[in-house]
Amino acid sequence: MRVKVHVSLKPGVLDPQGKAVGDALGRLGFGEVGGVRVGKTIELELKDGLSRADAEKRVKEMCETLLANTVVERYSIELA
Amino acid sequence: MRVKVHVSLKPGVLDPQGKAVGDALGRLGFGEVGGVRVGKTIELELKDGLSRADAEKRVKEMCETLLANTVVERYSIELA
Repeated sequence: MRVKVHVSLKPGVLDPQGKAVGDALGRLGFGEVGGVRVGKTIELELKDGLSRADAEKRVKEMCETLLANTVVERYSIELA
Repeated sequence: MRVKVHVSLKPGVLDPQGKAVGDALGRLGFGEVGGVRVGKTIELELKDGLSRADAEKRVKEMCETLLANTVVERYSIELA
């Protein structure tokens, strides 16, 4: 089973990488760009035999343990 | 207008960050995880007044110029 985890900074948390990308786009002539935020997408391949409910539960544990820093980041889980 | 750009490594390109995450998950007891790939999601806020077609064309230019390294990465554009 293939699972996608989207991790992004919570609203209000400063995003220096996004700021740098936005500034660079402005310098390159893309003046129509307002804000930019950069997040991560983690694609996991899970071994077969897990139910969808179990897979979601386990991936949630992975997010809380390692994949996201829940102080400043939020995540969403997308089962394929 | 809000636009999401997903950037990921092309299949076959080594992903050391994904490998590190996969190894760490294994050590943490998540043995059901096979492969892991890590990509980026870039959320852009575009100023109003652009048509959807123009927005897609401009964001494609941004991807080719700055956001993705098309030698080793592929991207997809999602208009909100």
